[in-house]
Amino acid sequence: MSQSPKQSAGRSVPTSADVARLAGVSRATVSYVLNNTAAVRISEPTRRRVREAAEELGYVPHAAARSLRAGHSRMVLMPTAHVPIGPLYSGFLNELQWALRRLDYTVVQYAGVGLEADEAARAWAELRPVAVVSLGRAGLTPSGVELLKRAGARAVITVGPQQIAGTHALVMDQTTVGRAAGAHLVERGCRAVGVVMPEEPGLEMFSVPRLDGVRAAAERAGATVVPLPLRYEEEPADRLAARWRELGLDGVFAYNDEYAMLLMRALQDAGIAIPEETAVVGSDDLVLGRLLRPRLSTVHIDMVRGQELAELVDRAVRDPEAAPERRELLASRIVRRESS
Amino acid sequence: MSQSPKQSAGRSVPTSADVARLAGVSRATVSYVLNNTAAVRISEPTRRRVREAAEELGYVPHAAARSLRAGHSRMVLMPTAHVPIGPLYSGFLNELQWALRRLDYTVVQYAGVGLEADEAARAWAELRPVAVVSLGRAGLTPSGVELLKRAGARAVITVGPQQIAGTHALVMDQTTVGRAAGAHLVERGCRAVGVVMPEEPGLEMFSVPRLDGVRAAAERAGATVVPLPLRYEEEPADRLAARWRELGLDGVFAYNDEYAMLLMRALQDAGIAIPEETAVVGSDDLVLGRLLRPRLSTVHIDMVRGQELAELVDRAVRDPEAAPERRELLASRIVRRESS
Repeated sequence: MSQSPKQSAGRSVPTSADVARLAGVSRATVSYVLNNTAAVRISEPTRRRVREAAEELGYVPHAAARSLRAGHSRMVLMPTAHVPIGPLYSGFLNELQWALRRLDYTVVQYAGVGLEADEAARAWAELRPVAVVSLGRAGLTPSGVELLKRAGARAVITVGPQQIAGTHALVMDQTTVGRAAGAHLVERGCRAVGVVMPEEPGLEMFSVPRLDGVRAAAERAGATVVPLPLRYEEEPADRLAARWRELGLDGVFAYNDEYAMLLMRALQDAGIAIPEETAVVGSDDLVLGRLLRPRLSTVHIDMVRGQELAELVDRAVRDPEAAPERRELLASRIVRRESS
Repeated sequence: MSQSPKQSAGRSVPTSADVARLAGVSRATVSYVLNNTAAVRISEPTRRRVREAAEELGYVPHAAARSLRAGHSRMVLMPTAHVPIGPLYSGFLNELQWALRRLDYTVVQYAGVGLEADEAARAWAELRPVAVVSLGRAGLTPSGVELLKRAGARAVITVGPQQIAGTHALVMDQTTVGRAAGAHLVERGCRAVGVVMPEEPGLEMFSVPRLDGVRAAAERAGATVVPLPLRYEEEPADRLAARWRELGLDGVFAYNDEYAMLLMRALQDAGIAIPEETAVVGSDDLVLGRLLRPRLSTVHIDMVRGQELAELVDRAVRDPEAAPERRELLASRIVRRESS
């Protein structure tokens, strides 16, 4: 690691000094032109000469050097979660990246796999991001936030179930999803409601508050609630369906539409009539729910818009002293189809 | 952008000089200890003093400064594609990130949204990655590769349908997927084979070679092949199903399992018997295919292992002068179930 091979394929990496020499200008002029500094007046022919020299040499400014000089970067770092990413979430992520790009930020996703929480925060801090947007869990702690701010992050924004000290928070309260499903099931007359709890790691941050939401809605109406751990595979679903009548459930909230598809198939194969014997509700309103027979009832979730989040990032970067904002972001409503 | 606010919440960002002062050692010693330089002998008590001082001050080394000194970073940059990410791909991505992490690389994903090809390469180059791993398309061109190498990237590796000059390539030949599906369908007696072509942008790099593969297999056996453009929505699928008998198709390769589910539902609603009237084959061997009735035949794809790709990255970084490697990586086999 201590050799410094600035060579790649036998050529040296061109520097701004090389550009300055070829264009016959100072290094400062090169920097002004290539960083589009509007404050300094430089003639168009000089600008052109610098750009042509840079192109001829294949020179690219070094973001790191620039951020060292400026004290901060335009990099928004997004720790990537371990969570399996669904279609709802990936659409949102795409929109967010576009919106930040239009505001001239560079979006970088960083995998924290294999790192403990504070170790991960340290690795993120090393890149000196101007802002950190943490989606879902992704292992951010109060001391991690502190560390990032010391390393120059002007804003830390969490989008997820909880707020962490020192951050702006877009709180997505998953209990509202469960509450919408639970209220619908008891309204349809269910007295014993099962709630699918995926066994895949990383989903508890969604499944536990969703269960709480179902409980809040169902128990108020005097119905009982039974958690049903399940892996996303055929066999465990068949085993669950085989003991369904023992469980005595007349309704089930299946965590999401994909689990609902898995469970509905197993129940139908076991001869359980849907919705007559058991009503089934999914969540996320995916296309596949409309393709099932009976058509799947589901909870439609209005996600935060990427544009809105991008604007919050920009505001927070411009005013790092602002008091932490907290906004509730999840609106849920039931979409009733044939399965309930 | 020309103010240099090194302050965040009123505190200054601690530097290695602050750590050196508090620990009573030189800055060089701080650097050796915190970067785990094995070549230099430093006593355990001194190491401990430096670490404690760094922790007390909340000091984090600046990856940028380190890479400026070393001439390269440990950053592997992965341009993120615009493509909707399926479960097959996200599992692979997760494994790759773990494997690179174990080899002490930092994995950073960079969204190229809103940038033209060479603009994107320039933005990536600014981060001075030691290696670039481009999955799928992601807009890399020969001049982009050239630019990245001039900026110090020691290896550029593409994983996708084509090789680009100057890169190591793990070529995933999607025609093998179509060929496996096409061969199976003609073997089942199909004489007129439809091939679903998703209309969502970004999928052509998979769908076009898959179509070519079906063609190669089917036309050799004297069967005809008809491309069927389709959006992943109920209505267009219903419209396609409504004119199915006019098309006179007795078999269809549905691009993947999700499109197969969409099309099968529409065909069944239109009274087309599967597989008697039309055989259906998907791809990717997802769980959902086993949940359909009839159970879906599919093409199982053996993806490159993340560990294998991580090792190639490491070899390429250590030996940037090595001749570009090219390896074929896609093994496909038909999984016959009830739909064909």
